[in-house]
Amino acid sequence: MDFRLLSKQLGIVALLIGGAMVLALPWASPALGIRKHLAYEGALAFETGGLVAPLLSIAACGLVGGLLVYFGRGSPGKLFRKEAVAVVGLSWVLATVLGALPYYFSGTCRGYMDEDETKTVRMHIVDCLFESQSGFSTTGATVLTQLEDPELVPHCILFWRSMTHFLGGLGIIVLFVVILGQGSAGKALMRAEMPGPTKEGSTPRMQDTALLFAFTYCGLNLALAIILWVMGLSLFDALCHAFGTMATGGFSTYNASVGHFDSAAIDSVIILFMILAGTNFTLLFYLICLRPKKVVGDIEWRVYMSVIAGITVAVIVVGLMDGDFTGLSEALQKGMFQVVSIMTTTGYCTDDFDGWSHFGRGVLFMLMFVGGCAGSTGGGMKVIRHILFGKILRLEVEQAYHPSVVRPLRLGGKAVEDPELRKNILVYFALVLAIFMFSWIFVITFEPDATWGDESQHKLVDSASSVAATLNNIGPGLGTVGATRNYAHFSWWSKSLFLWLMMLGRLELFSILVLFAPGFWRSR
Amino acid sequence: MDFRLLSKQLGIVALLIGGAMVLALPWASPALGIRKHLAYEGALAFETGGLVAPLLSIAACGLVGGLLVYFGRGSPGKLFRKEAVAVVGLSWVLATVLGALPYYFSGTCRGYMDEDETKTVRMHIVDCLFESQSGFSTTGATVLTQLEDPELVPHCILFWRSMTHFLGGLGIIVLFVVILGQGSAGKALMRAEMPGPTKEGSTPRMQDTALLFAFTYCGLNLALAIILWVMGLSLFDALCHAFGTMATGGFSTYNASVGHFDSAAIDSVIILFMILAGTNFTLLFYLICLRPKKVVGDIEWRVYMSVIAGITVAVIVVGLMDGDFTGLSEALQKGMFQVVSIMTTTGYCTDDFDGWSHFGRGVLFMLMFVGGCAGSTGGGMKVIRHILFGKILRLEVEQAYHPSVVRPLRLGGKAVEDPELRKNILVYFALVLAIFMFSWIFVITFEPDATWGDESQHKLVDSASSVAATLNNIGPGLGTVGATRNYAHFSWWSKSLFLWLMMLGRLELFSILVLFAPGFWRSR
Repeated sequence: MDFRLLSKQLGIVALLIGGAMVLALPWASPALGIRKHLAYEGALAFETGGLVAPLLSIAACGLVGGLLVYFGRGSPGKLFRKEAVAVVGLSWVLATVLGALPYYFSGTCRGYMDEDETKTVRMHIVDCLFESQSGFSTTGATVLTQLEDPELVPHCILFWRSMTHFLGGLGIIVLFVVILGQGSAGKALMRAEMPGPTKEGSTPRMQDTALLFAFTYCGLNLALAIILWVMGLSLFDALCHAFGTMATGGFSTYNASVGHFDSAAIDSVIILFMILAGTNFTLLFYLICLRPKKVVGDIEWRVYMSVIAGITVAVIVVGLMDGDFTGLSEALQKGMFQVVSIMTTTGYCTDDFDGWSHFGRGVLFMLMFVGGCAGSTGGGMKVIRHILFGKILRLEVEQAYHPSVVRPLRLGGKAVEDPELRKNILVYFALVLAIFMFSWIFVITFEPDATWGDESQHKLVDSASSVAATLNNIGPGLGTVGATRNYAHFSWWSKSLFLWLMMLGRLELFSILVLFAPGFWRSR
Repeated sequence: MDFRLLSKQLGIVALLIGGAMVLALPWASPALGIRKHLAYEGALAFETGGLVAPLLSIAACGLVGGLLVYFGRGSPGKLFRKEAVAVVGLSWVLATVLGALPYYFSGTCRGYMDEDETKTVRMHIVDCLFESQSGFSTTGATVLTQLEDPELVPHCILFWRSMTHFLGGLGIIVLFVVILGQGSAGKALMRAEMPGPTKEGSTPRMQDTALLFAFTYCGLNLALAIILWVMGLSLFDALCHAFGTMATGGFSTYNASVGHFDSAAIDSVIILFMILAGTNFTLLFYLICLRPKKVVGDIEWRVYMSVIAGITVAVIVVGLMDGDFTGLSEALQKGMFQVVSIMTTTGYCTDDFDGWSHFGRGVLFMLMFVGGCAGSTGGGMKVIRHILFGKILRLEVEQAYHPSVVRPLRLGGKAVEDPELRKNILVYFALVLAIFMFSWIFVITFEPDATWGDESQHKLVDSASSVAATLNNIGPGLGTVGATRNYAHFSWWSKSLFLWLMMLGRLELFSILVLFAPGFWRSR
């Protein structure tokens, strides 16, 4: 392992994060029209505390980045596969730590300790790391209960919180490839970073793909922000919700999430952009080039849309029968929003789906493991893996009675070449299963029943859903981590576990798992 | 597919089942001292109804068997792999149907419909099939609520119910190999029937192995029955509980299961024999040959015993802290019994583990998927598969950063040769996962909330545990299918699903899955 090279790369990551923090500074000023329509005391005061914290954090990023780059000076600069994997894993760890600084320095509060709203609870160091990781991993799980009170959460911090979504979605390492352009190493990085099993790129050169990916992503963020702004949101809210949507993150600036706006129009726009965010960016590029046939012909996208449509219909029908919705229009608006939000792993809420039928809750739980398309900002296990998983199992059952006939794996009419793909898909499912099971046992063993108060009978389900919601980068789950609640009341050890689960999910397991393998650090 | 051959083989199965039913006849007579100590009306009357039903069933078996053998006369008799697989799958289906006849003909009742105990509920045809399959698959899930009233469940029927465990454990097809000895075909059958991934046999010839297996099994059944008889149980109870234990079944003759006896001595004896029943029969043979080193040196057996010991200690410690047990001796007795019972997939109960802590319930749920050792009568996924699963995942993570180095899979110091084994283990886990998930969704979608009465908030967990308990051949699960309850109140469509799950679990998936593949029936 070439530690000098590692150091240099990590230093650059630290400097980039420091640079990004600058964008959080302007929101301390009321001149930018921060959520004027929210009526609270001091809404239009200049937030000194909110400004100092990012400034201190920027200084810290500069210091850390400078030291790392200094230590790594004169490194040969040739990035091998192993170093590339290490850079990916470690830069996410570093980003989490640095991204947690603004929360910590500002003394941001989780909410009130008592019902009288007199005593506030400051964020614990693990809370800060959790919130930071939740942002970068585009999960959207939060420990903040009172988002609307700038005394508790300054605007600069709230903006930085949504910015981590933007940065996470873009992929710190995609930025790397675009800005630094490291040839074959960049390719290795890209492979580690790009979600989903490798698909053919839309352009032969990896760097161009990364640039294309970045431009499409930024463009869609901008487009959504402008649309939301025109629809009446303040610039601040428009940007934050655009970041949360396009990164399939889910951090909102209101306690009631997107449900705060209570607008069918805004819901529809966000549904559309969530669907886009969960689509392979190569397909979005075809869409921009006005070649919709390429999009509709894509087998993964067809399944992705079919699942959304099918589950939405099922949820609406069952919900109407059970009386969860008042009428068809409400059912369509709330049911579809929630299905798309969970499926794309965004995690925005317009309805307390925890009050839905057991069928609805169970289906949403299953949907968490599906996720978006490969090559999108969506989390989860990705639609393509599920398609291949189903095909592989079918072939294996056939092979049980025809052992001599080995039929190739076919996708969209074409045989898939990669002989390792079958095993890799199965290994991925196996790892998710193993991680899920061990994490679930950890939470039910070590998280005290008191976390659930007088609802501890829901412990088994809620624990499973909290693990699923963090591992698949969704955010809200069922019960005590449901749409109207959050992760604040969990113990620090469970939060630490969730923090790693979010990272594992975002980097598709291997880049993080290898960090824990002693053999990885030993030889080259 | 050679249907004549198939017909002949299935005909023999039907005749054998009819023959076995003869053993249920004597228990209609009170002369055999049927549970004298139970004080109920008519305990010593001759049960005419209980006698007629098996007689009719024997006639039906004879008729079906005779017709099938007649249709299959003059078949070449050479059994290829595909026919062997078909015989295994179909003979279980046939056994289920024929084994259900005594319940149906006798008009056995599930229990009382009302609290006044005036109106009884006869077994539905699906109930009969469920109970029959539960017996043959050694699951022990029941729909009978009142076992102790011979007006509702005659003794002949109760004995037949436990006999299906004995037959299931022995494996109808092992009987086949022993009695008919079909050379290479027997080997193919054996491979399909013997639980667990293939291990080296203790004798070179398959037929000898089968005989050995059968003798050991019958010997242990007899030994346990004698011990229980000496300990004060009636001959009837001793035989039934021996069958339930050695087959890792779990059908009892009392509503409170083994807890009825409330005896530490009986519990200990049954714990010991459950552990033996979950042990690879090859190792039991070594034990009989007084070569204990071979047993202790077996990696699977060591892990099997370690898991039992570890989980027992954890359950006892947490149970004592939570006050689930009154003292250490009760904790040891009840905790260990329940852990062994679930782990070996027996399903006997001495305590209502549904009242245990959430940790205890969660751990028992996980244990359901572990199961016994390969080559035992235990169900579940088998310990060896979990060992290999863990090793494979570790190797795969290593391979992520050392792609060029392919390390062999090692077990007990020796490299495992089979190149297909890695994939097969992963496929097995994947199939169990897929079947579990789809079945869970089926139950929460189609089973009405009313099944849970006013406890429908437990639907998600209870449904998952009912699927796990049937797929892994345990029997009791959590909540509404818990230790003190049963499957009677489920709808017939859920019971039909469970019926197939039990069969899938018992035959380790493939022999049943291929029956649903159209291609399987087409060519040879």
